[in-house]
Amino acid sequence: MSKVDIGKKMLSENDRLAAENRVRFAEAGLLVLNLISSPGSGKTALLESTLDRLPDGVRVLVIEGDVSTDRDIERVRAHGADGVQINTAGGCHLSAKMVGKVLPDLNLDGADVLFVENVGNLICPSTYDLGEDAKVVLLSTTEGDDKPMKYPAIFHESSVAVINKIDLLPHLTYDIERAEREIGVLNADCDILRVSALKGTGMDEWIAWILRKMKEKRGE
Amino acid sequence: MSKVDIGKKMLSENDRLAAENRVRFAEAGLLVLNLISSPGSGKTALLESTLDRLPDGVRVLVIEGDVSTDRDIERVRAHGADGVQINTAGGCHLSAKMVGKVLPDLNLDGADVLFVENVGNLICPSTYDLGEDAKVVLLSTTEGDDKPMKYPAIFHESSVAVINKIDLLPHLTYDIERAEREIGVLNADCDILRVSALKGTGMDEWIAWILRKMKEKRGE
Repeated sequence: MSKVDIGKKMLSENDRLAAENRVRFAEAGLLVLNLISSPGSGKTALLESTLDRLPDGVRVLVIEGDVSTDRDIERVRAHGADGVQINTAGGCHLSAKMVGKVLPDLNLDGADVLFVENVGNLICPSTYDLGEDAKVVLLSTTEGDDKPMKYPAIFHESSVAVINKIDLLPHLTYDIERAEREIGVLNADCDILRVSALKGTGMDEWIAWILRKMKEKRGE
Repeated sequence: MSKVDIGKKMLSENDRLAAENRVRFAEAGLLVLNLISSPGSGKTALLESTLDRLPDGVRVLVIEGDVSTDRDIERVRAHGADGVQINTAGGCHLSAKMVGKVLPDLNLDGADVLFVENVGNLICPSTYDLGEDAKVVLLSTTEGDDKPMKYPAIFHESSVAVINKIDLLPHLTYDIERAEREIGVLNADCDILRVSALKGTGMDEWIAWILRKMKEKRGE
């Protein structure tokens, strides 16, 4: 079997397992968001800030994906979320199989939203469906405004792009309109939000986006 | 053949081609540095600043690796380097094969240093030898001080860690001593430099590091 055939077989096996996860999530009426970004764009900080701001009564689960360490699951647990950590042992993305394997450790029924924080990598996670409802790409103002066109696949795939660390804009040469324009060229249907997870700016719009998607998922 | 066997075969094939590249670089007496970081840590900005600061008479070549676009090679050419762009068409790292394929397009003889800017990815490039003399890992103060332990492989492999964007430290909660301590735990032999490619801080030490490695390579 050629390398290309092996690659295709791995992806189609992943798609099969993602479909199984998707059925399980639908049974539980659970919104599932797959968070993808470079290392250090602030995925965990966004989750912490989100957990602090979601209305009372919204039950949140988190799956944390990392190459190494369980630091992130400790951080989100401190903000009240139930969750599990997946260590990929060097692997550069989560797979549907890894996610499916930890679902028995989570109490899905009665939960409203599951955040899956993928491994910090703007490339490989874009091609692996986990069974999510939407991919959320996070980018940071400190990374340079040319990232959308340089890493186009994830912007094609995402339902929303969250531009984080806007509180640092006064200290940077980042052209946020350029980044937004490039995202629009790559995917006209991608919502775009400007936030500072640390300072709270724009978090109301992000919370409203999540609540709207939760309602859509429940068919309201 | 199992997935694991295929993976091992691909890596051993890469190692064979990396050894061929290494022979070619040795014949030319050329120092080759493989630059690895997350997207947006400032690899291209570091190269631009380096090109402006290397002594007259040092002949520099650049290979730019990107998933998409040829923006980076245009940037470094504007600072006087000869070079070529490799587009990986979605691929998450450079390979020895990709590098070997563009070497005929570069005039290696009489060149002093070749910078290979890898695809923006802190994970996958760490396992692919390109035939370089040293891996250079670049991290940025805006990415959070917990990155070394979260992405340990590249710190194991690197000869020097360059911590960029130190001019932004007053606006961040980044604990630079923590990051440096973690790098030291992972790899006691890894040199550590603090720079701001944009403002020029620490660039003298980085230039001195390169010149020292050039001398070592020529056996001086």
